Amino acid sequence: MKAFLDKDFLLNTDTAKILYHEAAASCPIIDYHCHISPKEIWENIHYDSITQVWLGGDHYKWRLMRCAGIDEKYITGDASAHDKFITWAKVLGKAIGNPLYHWSHLELRRYFGYEGILNESTAEEVWNLCNEQLHRPDFGVRDLVTRSNVETICTTDDPIDTLEYHEKLEKDPTFKTTVLPAWRPDKAMNLEKDTWKDYLSKLEKASGIRIDSFASLKQALSNRMDYFAAHRCSLSDHGLDYVMYAPATDEEVERIFCERYNGAVLSEGDIAKFKTAFMLYVAHQYKTRGWVMQLHYGCRRDNNPPMFDKLGPDTGYDCVNNTAPSTETAAFLGALEKDGALPKTILYSLDTNDNSAIDTICGCFQSSEAVSKVQHGSAWWFNDHFDGMMQQLRSLGNLGYLAGFVGMLTDSRSFLSYPRHEYFRRILCRLLGEWVAEGMYPEDLDTLKEIVRDISYRNAKAYFNFASDNV
Amino acid sequence: MKAFLDKDFLLNTDTAKILYHEAAASCPIIDYHCHISPKEIWENIHYDSITQVWLGGDHYKWRLMRCAGIDEKYITGDASAHDKFITWAKVLGKAIGNPLYHWSHLELRRYFGYEGILNESTAEEVWNLCNEQLHRPDFGVRDLVTRSNVETICTTDDPIDTLEYHEKLEKDPTFKTTVLPAWRPDKAMNLEKDTWKDYLSKLEKASGIRIDSFASLKQALSNRMDYFAAHRCSLSDHGLDYVMYAPATDEEVERIFCERYNGAVLSEGDIAKFKTAFMLYVAHQYKTRGWVMQLHYGCRRDNNPPMFDKLGPDTGYDCVNNTAPSTETAAFLGALEKDGALPKTILYSLDTNDNSAIDTICGCFQSSEAVSKVQHGSAWWFNDHFDGMMQQLRSLGNLGYLAGFVGMLTDSRSFLSYPRHEYFRRILCRLLGEWVAEGMYPEDLDTLKEIVRDISYRNAKAYFNFASDNV
Amino acid sequence: MKAFLDKDFLLNTDTAKILYHEAAASCPIIDYHCHISPKEIWENIHYDSITQVWLGGDHYKWRLMRCAGIDEKYITGDASAHDKFITWAKVLGKAIGNPLYHWSHLELRRYFGYEGILNESTAEEVWNLCNEQLHRPDFGVRDLVTRSNVETICTTDDPIDTLEYHEKLEKDPTFKTTVLPAWRPDKAMNLEKDTWKDYLSKLEKASGIRIDSFASLKQALSNRMDYFAAHRCSLSDHGLDYVMYAPATDEEVERIFCERYNGAVLSEGDIAKFKTAFMLYVAHQYKTRGWVMQLHYGCRRDNNPPMFDKLGPDTGYDCVNNTAPSTETAAFLGALEKDGALPKTILYSLDTNDNSAIDTICGCFQSSEAVSKVQHGSAWWFNDHFDGMMQQLRSLGNLGYLAGFVGMLTDSRSFLSYPRHEYFRRILCRLLGEWVAEGMYPEDLDTLKEIVRDISYRNAKAYFNFASDNV
Repeated sequence: MKAFLDKDFLLNTDTAKILYHEAAASCPIIDYHCHISPKEIWENIHYDSITQVWLGGDHYKWRLMRCAGIDEKYITGDASAHDKFITWAKVLGKAIGNPLYHWSHLELRRYFGYEGILNESTAEEVWNLCNEQLHRPDFGVRDLVTRSNVETICTTDDPIDTLEYHEKLEKDPTFKTTVLPAWRPDKAMNLEKDTWKDYLSKLEKASGIRIDSFASLKQALSNRMDYFAAHRCSLSDHGLDYVMYAPATDEEVERIFCERYNGAVLSEGDIAKFKTAFMLYVAHQYKTRGWVMQLHYGCRRDNNPPMFDKLGPDTGYDCVNNTAPSTETAAFLGALEKDGALPKTILYSLDTNDNSAIDTICGCFQSSEAVSKVQHGSAWWFNDHFDGMMQQLRSLGNLGYLAGFVGMLTDSRSFLSYPRHEYFRRILCRLLGEWVAEGMYPEDLDTLKEIVRDISYRNAKAYFNFASDNV
Repeated sequence: MKAFLDKDFLLNTDTAKILYHEAAASCPIIDYHCHISPKEIWENIHYDSITQVWLGGDHYKWRLMRCAGIDEKYITGDASAHDKFITWAKVLGKAIGNPLYHWSHLELRRYFGYEGILNESTAEEVWNLCNEQLHRPDFGVRDLVTRSNVETICTTDDPIDTLEYHEKLEKDPTFKTTVLPAWRPDKAMNLEKDTWKDYLSKLEKASGIRIDSFASLKQALSNRMDYFAAHRCSLSDHGLDYVMYAPATDEEVERIFCERYNGAVLSEGDIAKFKTAFMLYVAHQYKTRGWVMQLHYGCRRDNNPPMFDKLGPDTGYDCVNNTAPSTETAAFLGALEKDGALPKTILYSLDTNDNSAIDTICGCFQSSEAVSKVQHGSAWWFNDHFDGMMQQLRSLGNLGYLAGFVGMLTDSRSFLSYPRHEYFRRILCRLLGEWVAEGMYPEDLDTLKEIVRDISYRNAKAYFNFASDNV
Repeated sequence: MKAFLDKDFLLNTDTAKILYHEAAASCPIIDYHCHISPKEIWENIHYDSITQVWLGGDHYKWRLMRCAGIDEKYITGDASAHDKFITWAKVLGKAIGNPLYHWSHLELRRYFGYEGILNESTAEEVWNLCNEQLHRPDFGVRDLVTRSNVETICTTDDPIDTLEYHEKLEKDPTFKTTVLPAWRPDKAMNLEKDTWKDYLSKLEKASGIRIDSFASLKQALSNRMDYFAAHRCSLSDHGLDYVMYAPATDEEVERIFCERYNGAVLSEGDIAKFKTAFMLYVAHQYKTRGWVMQLHYGCRRDNNPPMFDKLGPDTGYDCVNNTAPSTETAAFLGALEKDGALPKTILYSLDTNDNSAIDTICGCFQSSEAVSKVQHGSAWWFNDHFDGMMQQLRSLGNLGYLAGFVGMLTDSRSFLSYPRHEYFRRILCRLLGEWVAEGMYPEDLDTLKEIVRDISYRNAKAYFNFASDNV
């Protein structure tokens, strides 16, 4: 039996231990998709308390507390920071099986040097220990990033963003981590939303282009892509219900734009046609510009109406959307391929049942432009745990070329979440080690270490065309 | 290698053994959902033979025999009880991998003290042994329940039921197990069935309310809910194709009621609207009354037309229905939440692919009214086996608060099925033990035992508001 | 730790080793579904090079190379056979987790006696070794089949096929393996395709029956079924999007036939009605003739338009189709059962999410005509790997009668693919061994060996009514 979270955590074979400690652990981190704030990096903010870090905006933790029957007062309400933390510690203490149990303890160990267990009885001790350290001058968010050996961060940015903090960070030689923007134009696409027309006004302002047609919307987007490209963006990201394909003529799309622009409520069919046209357009652009297209889908958001009214989006009220016809996803990529316009693409579904559909779709659209040009993204959000990662890695191994995988990302809002790369790498090494121990792959440590370094670091670097190799 | 079904069956770590033997085994059983007959309990019936017990109505066993190519004569036909049993033993002997293999042998060990293997060659011996014991005076069904340490049973009852046997049992001080009714109004909802209007007549009689509109149907239901509440009911149960959400105005629903009442065949859309309105109404009632709402879905019933004509429903001809859009389930619960009318709810799908959708939906609708107010129910029916339970527990652990789970139920028609609680508890302890052995949770036996006792017994007691705690 | 691919490959318990070596290994192979060419068997063709064998038409390998970013030149292009093989070896060397890694090394060991590892550094050595042997006179395809202990092969044949090579092989006493045709009438059913009417002309010629209505199409098919039956065919096979059920009157079906025959483009609904009518007809025929109906579904084919234009179908551009409502599959089989017209049926879905739907559907349509009359087919195509087979076997064990399973088939175009039966048998023995080691089934080796021999060989023989038993 292994001690809790010891140095060989999740490494259950000799091969796994060698691979993790000798090949994976020292690789820098490329966090090619996250939601941290470039402004906070620029300002090198410090935190008041561990409550602010852990419970200030982390809707994973909020959900778990709600599942445990905790009153909202102690979650997003007006309880004191101290009482919120103590309540969290009590919930976490019994959260067996939940990835937050591992993540939280990894963070306590890696950032705060706390090797104990967090639960109701140790909560005060941990509260004091963490806060003491957070108040030290070397606990700014830049310090956290640097200590985590993060080489590159890609944030998630709206087309109207000024990217001023990316600009400032680029010019600052004191911070070694590269911070790049990524393009996420969901608000321009989601024409069914009440806020769409307001958003178009903002996009008009940012681009200087009057938007009163789909043609002019495309122009405005292209203008902002130029701006993003000038700020070293080479990566896009989309949140979709599913990867749909409802083709329409230009005239139809303009008609749909016009109707909605003038206030009509659209049919499901028209919404799908508009979104398809939008996605086809931006994909063509990405291909031309050499950008990567990330597609995140399989989510139904904001399911609790009263809590949405109270707290807004991204507060822990989302669920898996299990309707994503693979035929449409394949048809969408096929339509791009037909035009020679398919960019490098990464598919992420929140529904693990989509794993084999995704991996087999990826296999249909490869080319020598890149190793695994169309990729199955790392286990996302609700699946970002031991079982979810194992399933994604096994599916990719069975159906694709695992050695070409670009690996882990945090998708996080927190500056303490980099141990999730460690978590992923341990699971990766565990899986490879199990295959070797089972006689399913030779004990060829040189090749195995290459594969581990590739997936942990080098593949992402090559795939996204990031600068020189440090490993 | 472990001996077959020994005392440490399924317990593959030291931690698992400690947890099961020291915490789980002695917990009483709360069987909060089953299909046994209160009349049979009241009458304390005795069985003629092991064939009557095992093959009299158990469609799990019938299916397995049919899969093995057995003639219906030996299943539900006119073969002798003896020959049916011998045939069953022959099939079971080779039924490797099937949960019936474990359940049957657990029942032989726990009730009949038979420690051997049942197969073709031991069939006669087991036949004699079981029948001899069944004819003893202390083998009435009350004895079986008592010996199984069952504290509470919730049966499944139709709104028109008189509940006379629940009443008699409540007044009988000699039987220590509490037997409560549960409300299952499927027949009032399923207006597409030929038998619906006949059923309304019966409901009119039971409620004393004339039913010629949806409004009056609601009145009649409310009247019967009062009656059920007076008989200590606090639990409902529904069998649905899926948890749908097709909202409609009151006028539309009355129009649909009226059309069907007058003999029309309804469209799929109208059926969905009526059922949505029905479910919204009863959910509001459950919330007001403090009842729990159980939703069982993902089943297509009665698939074999000639056998349905011959044997009727619940005879082993059902399959998984794999169409259950999570968006509708989330929208249904969201609509109730918006009205402040969401009762405590347990979701069960027959399709294991729904696990992560269910667990993420549950996470959207929690509150401090109860620990895990909206729950993912225990692996149901076709999934009630080692793999299915493991999947449900892991999914709940990954995505929710496993420690708050209300745990196992039998869903059974048999008085010998209580060892399924033992089966579940062993699997639960195994999983927790594995996590500890892997260093994924500390070896904190006190907390682990608390979690085991909570899931095995206490959580159900608290969630359903059953009386005083015995552990 | 076990050495790579040693004699106990995948056998991780003593029981598994005994079962494999003492019961499974010596069973002959019944390859009841494959795509090899009877002409090539008749001609006993020899291969020029290992590239021809491995990369001449194997789209599994092509896909993997594409996923690794290899230029099409080295896959299906004009690179030399030597360079293609070296490129393949380089890709395979890092293809950890992919079943091709196991299959390829099993083939090298079993046919070429090469016990090493194939990768970039050994590629030349293996190239020479394999080619040298392939040029030996005893390396014709008949020799490969004979050395693999193949008792029966069922090919896949179009209704218009002359079956001349089957005829010749039947009369040739020097080749001991029985080679039978199987009936695959997809081209007659797929009326939405541009090539449908051309195909009807060919079918007219083959049958001598003029086809200008659904009634005459049925006559022509019946005529060809007579012909196939006279050539010992007793097995059909269908490739379907999903197993649909859209019933229609005879008049409607004739109207749809007529419209399409005259060049109309049909609605989805009409296509489904025609295909349903087609499938109902052939199923009735199969029932009357005692043929087995195989239904393969869950595939979306030819997803990459430019590569389809360049290479045609079956070149590695297919993916999982995740839309297959179990309600329609159950309704289709139910409609046949109602008519007493349900033949023995094997269901295969490319989507592993369908496993439990399939197993529960199978359980609804059993009879004493055969052990497991309606079967869940072996893990197919993209699922033909360790995880996929384990899932299929476990699902079948949990929900059906595993001991009645007809077991493995190659579904292959290659004469070197028979080690996949070995792979399957090892996985089967591993699973049974694990259950015994866990105390989930007694260590009754006699019964276990019977079960292993049944699934490896005897069940298929009995199910398909093939001739005398050799084990």
